[in-house]
Amino acid sequence: MTITREEARAFTIRMLAQAGTVLTEEEQAAVEVADMGLGELARSGLQLITYVNNERYCAKDLVLLPGQTCPEHRHPPLSAANPGKMETFRCRSGVVYLYVEGEETLRRQARPPAGSEPYYTAFHEVELRPGQQYTIAPNTLHWFQAGAEGAVVSEFSSASHDESDVFTDPRIRRLPDRG
Amino acid sequence: MTITREEARAFTIRMLAQAGTVLTEEEQAAVEVADMGLGELARSGLQLITYVNNERYCAKDLVLLPGQTCPEHRHPPLSAANPGKMETFRCRSGVVYLYVEGEETLRRQARPPAGSEPYYTAFHEVELRPGQQYTIAPNTLHWFQAGAEGAVVSEFSSASHDESDVFTDPRIRRLPDRG
Repeated sequence: MTITREEARAFTIRMLAQAGTVLTEEEQAAVEVADMGLGELARSGLQLITYVNNERYCAKDLVLLPGQTCPEHRHPPLSAANPGKMETFRCRSGVVYLYVEGEETLRRQARPPAGSEPYYTAFHEVELRPGQQYTIAPNTLHWFQAGAEGAVVSEFSSASHDESDVFTDPRIRRLPDRG
Repeated sequence: MTITREEARAFTIRMLAQAGTVLTEEEQAAVEVADMGLGELARSGLQLITYVNNERYCAKDLVLLPGQTCPEHRHPPLSAANPGKMETFRCRSGVVYLYVEGEETLRRQARPPAGSEPYYTAFHEVELRPGQQYTIAPNTLHWFQAGAEGAVVSEFSSASHDESDVFTDPRIRRLPDRG
């Protein structure tokens, strides 16, 4: 299956609307479709809208296509005063399988995208359904995948510096992509 | 009109559900009904649920009864490194009239609660409808009132220390109130 950026954007706006989230026209136009440079958006990537990102805090909504995976990464320390981005994921609709560093979950409900298995190393599973949330400590490897319906996740965090993210997969380029 | 804490809690849970927000049972039980010690909840106060509040960031949903006012206050500097809480209000449902320090709006859409007029001094109006948001600088006096349908407002902010808030009305006691 392939999906275009425009289709991913339309899906994102519909999923947010169904989750009760009203976007202004400017926000709809600013929905970011991030394929991370992998060119397989249906499998690997993420859609997002950033509501606020300042030097102190950040809030976004993340939208995943059915079965789509946001690849493994961490938010490294940025300064003596900043140990790296800390973030709280709160599921709003659908189901999300989140994997973080820690004790490996043996019977897992999701698996890395086919062909990218070498670039996934964190296998402690956290299942998030609507109303459930989890806070990811700074500098902790994590990745996440939506269930069959896709998912909407609100992200509350410290300041976001996406360009500093460290991905396990060396093929990834995390650039702002509003194309 | 009077309203009980239990009625305010039930209204809050219903308004959040109608705005698409799923709360766990624990969260429903933790909805805070704050009358600020004024004993006139229908006019002055606030309902809220805190999703996360750590040393770096905070996320809450605020719910206002129809015409209810959150009294004027500011978030003062707390340390050399903390100039005071900074917060972004994003309207999710209903309409909110927010008043902040600055040029006075002459034709205003809301007025302070009857009998409390001396304790309101900030009159620059910002109207927020679903999808609209506004960021309040630290240590800035502000108050807000819902329109006739009540309102749901998501608040994204730096760390929250409610006990440090400075209210203009000296009668106010801002204590955690889950009664």
